[in-house]
Amino acid sequence: MADLPSFRFRLEQQAPRTGSGGVTRGASVREFPASTGIAGVSMRLAAGSLRELHWHANAAEWAFVVSGWCRTTIMHPDGSSAVDSFGPGDVWYFPRGYGHSIQGLGPEECHFILIFDNGDFSEDHTFSLTDFLAHVPPAVSAQNLGLTAAEVAQLPDREVYFAQGPAPSDDSSAAAATPDSELTSVHRYPLMAQEPRRSPGGGTQRTVTVDEFPISTTMAGSVIELEPGGLRELHWHPNADEWQYYLSGRAQMGVFLSQGEAVTEEFEAGDVGYAPMGAGHYILNTGTEVCRLLIGFNSGHYQAIDLSAWLSTNPVSTLAANLGLPEGILAKLPRDHRFIVPPA
Amino acid sequence: MADLPSFRFRLEQQAPRTGSGGVTRGASVREFPASTGIAGVSMRLAAGSLRELHWHANAAEWAFVVSGWCRTTIMHPDGSSAVDSFGPGDVWYFPRGYGHSIQGLGPEECHFILIFDNGDFSEDHTFSLTDFLAHVPPAVSAQNLGLTAAEVAQLPDREVYFAQGPAPSDDSSAAAATPDSELTSVHRYPLMAQEPRRSPGGGTQRTVTVDEFPISTTMAGSVIELEPGGLRELHWHPNADEWQYYLSGRAQMGVFLSQGEAVTEEFEAGDVGYAPMGAGHYILNTGTEVCRLLIGFNSGHYQAIDLSAWLSTNPVSTLAANLGLPEGILAKLPRDHRFIVPPA
Amino acid sequence: MADLPSFRFRLEQQAPRTGSGGVTRGASVREFPASTGIAGVSMRLAAGSLRELHWHANAAEWAFVVSGWCRTTIMHPDGSSAVDSFGPGDVWYFPRGYGHSIQGLGPEECHFILIFDNGDFSEDHTFSLTDFLAHVPPAVSAQNLGLTAAEVAQLPDREVYFAQGPAPSDDSSAAAATPDSELTSVHRYPLMAQEPRRSPGGGTQRTVTVDEFPISTTMAGSVIELEPGGLRELHWHPNADEWQYYLSGRAQMGVFLSQGEAVTEEFEAGDVGYAPMGAGHYILNTGTEVCRLLIGFNSGHYQAIDLSAWLSTNPVSTLAANLGLPEGILAKLPRDHRFIVPPA
Repeated sequence: MADLPSFRFRLEQQAPRTGSGGVTRGASVREFPASTGIAGVSMRLAAGSLRELHWHANAAEWAFVVSGWCRTTIMHPDGSSAVDSFGPGDVWYFPRGYGHSIQGLGPEECHFILIFDNGDFSEDHTFSLTDFLAHVPPAVSAQNLGLTAAEVAQLPDREVYFAQGPAPSDDSSAAAATPDSELTSVHRYPLMAQEPRRSPGGGTQRTVTVDEFPISTTMAGSVIELEPGGLRELHWHPNADEWQYYLSGRAQMGVFLSQGEAVTEEFEAGDVGYAPMGAGHYILNTGTEVCRLLIGFNSGHYQAIDLSAWLSTNPVSTLAANLGLPEGILAKLPRDHRFIVPPA
Repeated sequence: MADLPSFRFRLEQQAPRTGSGGVTRGASVREFPASTGIAGVSMRLAAGSLRELHWHANAAEWAFVVSGWCRTTIMHPDGSSAVDSFGPGDVWYFPRGYGHSIQGLGPEECHFILIFDNGDFSEDHTFSLTDFLAHVPPAVSAQNLGLTAAEVAQLPDREVYFAQGPAPSDDSSAAAATPDSELTSVHRYPLMAQEPRRSPGGGTQRTVTVDEFPISTTMAGSVIELEPGGLRELHWHPNADEWQYYLSGRAQMGVFLSQGEAVTEEFEAGDVGYAPMGAGHYILNTGTEVCRLLIGFNSGHYQAIDLSAWLSTNPVSTLAANLGLPEGILAKLPRDHRFIVPPA
Repeated sequence: MADLPSFRFRLEQQAPRTGSGGVTRGASVREFPASTGIAGVSMRLAAGSLRELHWHANAAEWAFVVSGWCRTTIMHPDGSSAVDSFGPGDVWYFPRGYGHSIQGLGPEECHFILIFDNGDFSEDHTFSLTDFLAHVPPAVSAQNLGLTAAEVAQLPDREVYFAQGPAPSDDSSAAAATPDSELTSVHRYPLMAQEPRRSPGGGTQRTVTVDEFPISTTMAGSVIELEPGGLRELHWHPNADEWQYYLSGRAQMGVFLSQGEAVTEEFEAGDVGYAPMGAGHYILNTGTEVCRLLIGFNSGHYQAIDLSAWLSTNPVSTLAANLGLPEGILAKLPRDHRFIVPPA
């Protein structure tokens, strides 16, 4: 049996990239080899700190705001654009290659998780405005921007990445095409404002897919809360890989790889987990507090097959042949869908 | 010129995996290197023998029953489920990752061919219920299933794969969501009950695509019967690889690879053949009986361009320039679609 | 920093393949390593010269006629077929795997550019009628074509590729299913007859996508004319790679690869250029005449984000924080879409 992969990456324990009020930690397939289909980033912006105008050549971006407030700008190839504001529990989606920026609104730091639908995503594929302008002949920049050579010489001479500005006021969004007072917008979905699916005593799940949030054609996401001892039951996803960020609490996840192979690991806040498409897995709250985790999928649709639902749709005679159990035990097997199972 | 690949695999001559009334032989790209886009399995189940509850992480499953009867169970991620019965000539389709099982109904052995839309398909990607349960901490299984530790200890301690049960009676399908008396169902299409496309003196073809069988979005299939000397004429498929299982008789297939390369091989019942997308090929019945073969494609749509139809749609002046033939011969070239050509 | 790739290939300076009135030069990823997603060919046919009946197993074909006239034949898998004539500025599209031919109509040579939506495209995947027939047992060809053995012996014994015939007259298209007098047809779009998008003093662009030309589901194309000193401004394509053929004049293209890497090269008529999906680039006419270039994309849809449009959709406060420029310069930045910028 070959060495099994780890499905845990201690993202918040990595050395960050920092500058001008910004802090970022990333995990692509290079740092986290199991995560072949999805990459992720944890980023923090102080008030006014700007993740500069940039785009991603090979991935769409799905984001969840953990704390604080930020403002984004985005332009579509059709010429439309938007300026949106996000607070705790809000989600955004930016299609592959669309130019965008993110700025902290303050007063406190804004912390958000970015999920990309490509495990190969990395800084190699992040294109920044200032890096672009710094690698074009000055005369070309001057012609394009309508500036003199002397003015072009005042542009940054390398990639800015994070820039510190004043925290934007509402007035500064004058260029915004989208009013900010609506509950949802093209790019924003307030996930934590959704009524969750509840499993009494076990926990809750909130999910956003392309059905609720039409722009997110390539990704879906979820927030699960597990009560102490609560078990997100054995299940798998037929259509997508799963990337997890543990927001709070402690959990155990087992990932079943078939052929007698499985990996069981312990997770805590700040860790990232991964379950490949089709691989069986469960998540058990092993701590004494609620365990909250953010989940991203690399499909716009959410699909799962849960053990209890699967067994309950099979004739008892099939289960009897399959499991070789006496009738007394067979009669106790689940005949309905459990989803999140409370502790006994 | 490099060594050319073989497009023949003697599937029924391989050593099988057996157990509890089941026999299976498989061919993925590992055993049959030419078959990069499709894999296949020949499986036999005695009365009551169960291919246990399982799923495939990276492939959909298309099946054709050669002989005997069996019953399947399947669950969809949307919670729907079905129990269906299949006899000779019936086809099923199970989307990638959906949990399912197959059980022989008896009285005689049921023989069926499984085709998967991924050449890398293999046992490495077959996930079985008992293997999953045996690789989860017993306390997790107990919580999930509502059993005691002592009861969980009675579960199989390794993958069952094949299990012997009593042959199911109709009554045992009480959990079935789908009545079994309809001609077709979501998952079942009675291919051999279809009126075939006939080429008098040459043979017949029956084809099922996503148009007739809406669930089969990623695969289509066909049964061809060639009279002795009948020629499925030179053709190719613009949109799919082709995987063949020879059901009876003898045939020659030539596969044209361009650049002056072609492979000509002889096939008999139990052999598997393969023609890559776009590769020209023909099938000639070289025996004295009808040659029947099952064909699977890794597209839900059927597309073919046949030599006679192609030539007949071109101006004679184009053919004259292309082939450099005198008028007397040009006048004899096909001006209609032949499809299966009887012997002269 | 690793060696950077070149995004220029001097296609018309390559040694051609010639024969029977035909001349062809090709560039796949083997000859031009940067062009991973698109391959191209420059072909010339004398009057009556026929690029024989053939198909491509792994790519669709998009074409632009530079000069002269030619006639094509094509058959679809649904049995439909067409004979079409093309002149300067016309575009055709043949889906992957559909059998087709091209013949010069004269009186002068016809020159056209072929673009394929697969960088791995090459002669290895071009399947020719005569090569197919020459690599099938003669008895099979005889049965398929309804010829005697003696007649089959008169077929070409190897691939013809180019064949010289008489220039077709209108009468010889009697087999055509499509009348030739319409402005567009299923396979033909007269791109240069389109009213262009104009940037006064800068240049023009004509674009054809699946919206105007429904059959071209996997490719789109464009012809750009740049006035001397005109700059197709900094931009990128979120959804496609770009393949260029320089028709006339001289230009400089810079390709920005992120991470402080960029490649700047000079182009002239007959050169091919390439810009990968998402990579920033600009094209500057550095000559004294109009620079015309043909562009092909490996998506049926055209998407671009241009620098001026992007900047103009962002609040000034965002640009101020990002670029660190004084207000006087910020006020000069573009507030509208420039597209092609005339010289100062």
